[in-house]
Amino acid sequence: MRYGVQGGKCLRGFLVLESAALHGLDTDSALAAAAAIEALHAYSLIHDDLPAMDDDDLRRGQPTVHVQWDEATAILAGDALQSLAFELLCDPALGDAECRLALVAGLAQAAGARGMVLGQALDIAAETAPAPLTLDQITALQAGKTGALIEWSAMAGAVLAGADPAPLAAYARALGLAFQIADDILDVTGDSGTTGKRVGKDESAGKATFVSLLGLDAARARASALVQEAETALLPYGPRADTLIAAAHYVIARDR
Amino acid sequence: MRYGVQGGKCLRGFLVLESAALHGLDTDSALAAAAAIEALHAYSLIHDDLPAMDDDDLRRGQPTVHVQWDEATAILAGDALQSLAFELLCDPALGDAECRLALVAGLAQAAGARGMVLGQALDIAAETAPAPLTLDQITALQAGKTGALIEWSAMAGAVLAGADPAPLAAYARALGLAFQIADDILDVTGDSGTTGKRVGKDESAGKATFVSLLGLDAARARASALVQEAETALLPYGPRADTLIAAAHYVIARDR
Repeated sequence: MRYGVQGGKCLRGFLVLESAALHGLDTDSALAAAAAIEALHAYSLIHDDLPAMDDDDLRRGQPTVHVQWDEATAILAGDALQSLAFELLCDPALGDAECRLALVAGLAQAAGARGMVLGQALDIAAETAPAPLTLDQITALQAGKTGALIEWSAMAGAVLAGADPAPLAAYARALGLAFQIADDILDVTGDSGTTGKRVGKDESAGKATFVSLLGLDAARARASALVQEAETALLPYGPRADTLIAAAHYVIARDR
Repeated sequence: MRYGVQGGKCLRGFLVLESAALHGLDTDSALAAAAAIEALHAYSLIHDDLPAMDDDDLRRGQPTVHVQWDEATAILAGDALQSLAFELLCDPALGDAECRLALVAGLAQAAGARGMVLGQALDIAAETAPAPLTLDQITALQAGKTGALIEWSAMAGAVLAGADPAPLAAYARALGLAFQIADDILDVTGDSGTTGKRVGKDESAGKATFVSLLGLDAARARASALVQEAETALLPYGPRADTLIAAAHYVIARDR
């Protein structure tokens, strides 16, 4: 479990803490929620990397969990990390019980059969589909597979503060899509030494991606437009949102 | 997901509803918690049956999920059922937010790395251990693998009512152990047509069980003593606990 959570970018945990700071909450008041989303995200990576799923042997520059140990260990570590995520959201340091329960309900929905698991199921189904996915289908897949958790993360601070999460949700939807397009671009232009995971795998698997459907230049332009959209969504917060805006720019400029 | 939750005994859901009734709560006020534990239990069976884990092809008289569909589907169905369990515990019909949160925290702990997942990990480790497990080790394994969820189930009604769950916890610990001993006995004496799962698998895997360590007669006597212990724990409730007491007797008399 520890091995599986280490070495990531911690983008989701960062979003939780920044979203909390935006609402005047200090790190201690949100840290358990940031830890929860990182535990949940790590579980999803461990399971997605399994031989029966995406069959990846490299993640964050290290052998994947089932390569380092074995498949049973990877399944169980992922399972227990999901439980741990919900346990962490019960931490009294997060404040009011109603707010903590709203985080639990939101995370359960974002992670479950209408969120992340649906996205992964669509992704796996696409591998044996008779035709490559369309842009709409890839967008729906992404909204589940990576979008739902990113949206939960960005909204978490508002939920904890009892504030309106709508601007952060709009920010997160644009950010999540930009993030996925950047991932598809990195799969074509990156190298595994820097990204810490296998690259070129979408093309070799014949998978439709934002890059294969739009071309590299149009994909980059779309990602930039989405970052602008994310920035606009945060206008109500003024300069207090500068770090979140910088994060949106980082998401498409990153090399890993 | 639906296929995986169907056809079981619903012992855990039954314990939730009976524990609630014992505290004057009607079915509607506890049904979401009963559904939650059945979803969580179903997830654990689907993952335990996977080829990398116990590699079972028969469960509740039907092909297991990975046999009926495939491994990726089984992993994802289990993952989403765990999320669903926590989503169900957020149902406002369960009442007070603090009580619902206590159920979430308790279930996360019971299911996670110090509860059910630990039990399953110990069970898998035992397969390649240099020596068969001792009685103490098997008892610890059982406390995690099946005991923790049974204890959560029996306590749930008290938690929802804000009452002391200690007598129900004592009942559940005895019941859970009796349940596992009965399972080990059924693996030797039952047939797969009635139990709905493969039998004789412990012995063929060279696994130590309560039966292999104690012998059949002493295992039966131990199970009976535990049922007496469970019954005694419920004395404070008087005749209102008769159904739960009958359930304890059923657990060792069942043929599936």
